[in-house]
Amino acid sequence: MPRPVAPLLSREQIASAALELIDETGTFTLPGLARRLGVSASSIYYHFPGGREAIIEAIRGFLTTGPAPTTGTDWQTYAQEWAREYRRAFARHPKVVPMLTAQTVSDPRTLATYEALARVLRDAGFHEEELLHAVTILDCFILGSALDAAAPLDVWAASDDPESALGAAIRTVGPEPEKRSERSFEIGLRLLLTGLAELRT
Amino acid sequence: MPRPVAPLLSREQIASAALELIDETGTFTLPGLARRLGVSASSIYYHFPGGREAIIEAIRGFLTTGPAPTTGTDWQTYAQEWAREYRRAFARHPKVVPMLTAQTVSDPRTLATYEALARVLRDAGFHEEELLHAVTILDCFILGSALDAAAPLDVWAASDDPESALGAAIRTVGPEPEKRSERSFEIGLRLLLTGLAELRT
Repeated sequence: MPRPVAPLLSREQIASAALELIDETGTFTLPGLARRLGVSASSIYYHFPGGREAIIEAIRGFLTTGPAPTTGTDWQTYAQEWAREYRRAFARHPKVVPMLTAQTVSDPRTLATYEALARVLRDAGFHEEELLHAVTILDCFILGSALDAAAPLDVWAASDDPESALGAAIRTVGPEPEKRSERSFEIGLRLLLTGLAELRT
Repeated sequence: MPRPVAPLLSREQIASAALELIDETGTFTLPGLARRLGVSASSIYYHFPGGREAIIEAIRGFLTTGPAPTTGTDWQTYAQEWAREYRRAFARHPKVVPMLTAQTVSDPRTLATYEALARVLRDAGFHEEELLHAVTILDCFILGSALDAAAPLDVWAASDDPESALGAAIRTVGPEPEKRSERSFEIGLRLLLTGLAELRT
């Protein structure tokens, strides 16, 4: 009987191992990734002829969840769900965020979720430049909020000065400090979606 | 005559070299930093007994510009200037952003700029939890916008599909595509500052 075939190296395995390395060290190299997977660098290039940049695109796709269903929802509800999903995915992997923003989005799954959002916005009356601004503004707020979600509970070292306005605000953050970031995100998202409604020409 | 004294290693030099390493590679290690500076790791610990985390705080201080003057400006103008300065500083060093958000802000200069913003907001009628949300929301938008400012001009790969809503938006981005990111930032900031005005209790 033939020996069991060793499991084939897949693109998903490679992207997943690269994401682990980024989570642990803030970056990854092709030789380091090959060592982690116990394969040769050429096995990685076989799956990713585009090398490092292509692996980062695969990570993007890996983190991208499908667009929320559009049926029966208005554009603001759709954009809200889209933003929540996106923030959740990136909050788990903050160190990958600047790698993703440093290169053009070409992963098809990710492009499809942006296209879905763009269509909902277009159908809601956003056109041309305003549509691009709306997507960019949401994107920026979501990425920053994902980093904030991954931040320590104490974002700022508390001041001893009783006159400190920041210190007073920190002390009155209210119940469930672990939800501070999420509350801020929800408020900011609401403000942006309300404001964006006025942007339509 | 004595030989000229070799320039002493300073905290600024160490922080600056660490920032260079982050800009180049996305991260830094203490041994790597010592090699770059041509000194021993113990020389670095002499200046930074707190090690890596303390060096990251020094980088934060290094990037922090002083708060804009408050005289004669309303809170929205102040926050706008604060946000523009902050975005400009981080857009030049996108890879350091997740390192800064991963630890509590303790650099005194940076805390002073947050305190200045918090005082302006308090004097404008923001109190307690609303003040903290306002600062957090601005922070998130600024950090994401800094990453967007450092992104390639083509944020999304253009689709060939003539029906693509995103593709149509990309094609009509208008003159000076290099200013797209800045235009989106200015519009989003205005929307947030308008919305935040309503947040005051």
